[in-house]
Amino acid sequence: MPRYALLIDYDGSPFNGWQRQAAGQPSVQAAVEAALARLEPGPHTIAAAGRTDAGVHATGQVAHCDLTRDWDPFRLSEALNFHLKPDPVAVLRAVRVAEDFHARFSAVKRRYLFRLVARRAPVTHDRGRVWQVLNPLDLQAMRAGAAHLIGLHDFTTFRSTLCQSKSPVKTLDEITITEQAVPGGVEYRFTLRARSFLHNQVRSIVGTLERVGAGGWQPGDVAAALAARDRAACGPVCPPQGLYLTGVGYPDDPFGP
Amino acid sequence: MPRYALLIDYDGSPFNGWQRQAAGQPSVQAAVEAALARLEPGPHTIAAAGRTDAGVHATGQVAHCDLTRDWDPFRLSEALNFHLKPDPVAVLRAVRVAEDFHARFSAVKRRYLFRLVARRAPVTHDRGRVWQVLNPLDLQAMRAGAAHLIGLHDFTTFRSTLCQSKSPVKTLDEITITEQAVPGGVEYRFTLRARSFLHNQVRSIVGTLERVGAGGWQPGDVAAALAARDRAACGPVCPPQGLYLTGVGYPDDPFGP
Repeated sequence: MPRYALLIDYDGSPFNGWQRQAAGQPSVQAAVEAALARLEPGPHTIAAAGRTDAGVHATGQVAHCDLTRDWDPFRLSEALNFHLKPDPVAVLRAVRVAEDFHARFSAVKRRYLFRLVARRAPVTHDRGRVWQVLNPLDLQAMRAGAAHLIGLHDFTTFRSTLCQSKSPVKTLDEITITEQAVPGGVEYRFTLRARSFLHNQVRSIVGTLERVGAGGWQPGDVAAALAARDRAACGPVCPPQGLYLTGVGYPDDPFGP
Repeated sequence: MPRYALLIDYDGSPFNGWQRQAAGQPSVQAAVEAALARLEPGPHTIAAAGRTDAGVHATGQVAHCDLTRDWDPFRLSEALNFHLKPDPVAVLRAVRVAEDFHARFSAVKRRYLFRLVARRAPVTHDRGRVWQVLNPLDLQAMRAGAAHLIGLHDFTTFRSTLCQSKSPVKTLDEITITEQAVPGGVEYRFTLRARSFLHNQVRSIVGTLERVGAGGWQPGDVAAALAARDRAACGPVCPPQGLYLTGVGYPDDPFGP
């Protein structure tokens, strides 16, 4: 059966996350599988690179599916988008891939963006798309705190107790934090990149770094929290709506360059 | 009575425009006036720099109001934001101004942003916040077309037949067009600046320039349309949801620098 990789963009607000749930619970996976069923009789079961939580968004999720017909990739993406309406889910590209390509297990890099807006007035345009705090944050302090997390570490402190990963040891390749003025405040953008992440790792890290930015934690406290290897040492886990899966990398990128 | 200028940010999607309508029709003006009535008995009637149409957004609208009490400006903005919830309207700043300050008549500069996204896949995150077209546009051609509109002109071609302005002669100080890659496509951002605009002028101009970008019009056709001074010579008026009032200028800016 021909296998296709799908590059998928979605607003996670109306969904209980990527993963298919009990009947009646909306999920992105179920939305895409239902669209596939309009093209070829199912059931379809698709796998994705990142199983995003409820309320988490994506601009570069990757999933794969197996179909019986030999679809023109452009027509496949157009047909899926037609059937996905009106859900806020869109297939940016579809490409034919080898049968041993696996969206999740072949992935060697994942990149997330977290959008944090600091302003007094309630957010309007970006409601459900950013995490809002009321006071500006110290960018340099957050960067200093983040520096302690780069590299190979036991991230037990920064993973959910529900995390099913066999090992808490991961290599965090990048945390970049930028700031830009927005009406009435400042937006901080955190970019995190790793081969793979633990459950709630990004939100645990950003929630902790926000405490550093606000002055409640010192940058060195992040190092101490990491060294504790204790979930109780983590700062508050931040809410999901600022988080975006922005990219997935493969040794032989089906969508690139 | 002390007069206050309010810097206001709103998502225009749920409103029938800025201006107060018949009862039961939501408007941004009515939302702000209702919040004011929670602070001091009304009725309140506020004036704004730009009477945005239904579906048009703002990040820098300015309005003024008269109150009987001597409000601390920060507390006034906080109180208004409390009562504006859950509407997507926020007061970014409130400042005390002279009694002859008028948000509309004192304004000497208005700036609008228009967001146009060209991509095949339906927009997800920015639904209701951008105008989507399916094919990429020629940036240089749009810039060449726009250049014909800069300066003092009779803009009869580019104003609504419902426009109540006494004269169709306006000076357009700036049209800047930029492009940036977005997932699955390209976003074009049009920035227009003038002392004042005619009704539907920005949407008439952007709709016409999109035709130039798509190749249906040549850049010189924009000059011919302008010279025709005939509404029928205009390109298609583009939809409201990509338009944002981003700033209003005053000789003695109450919010700046």
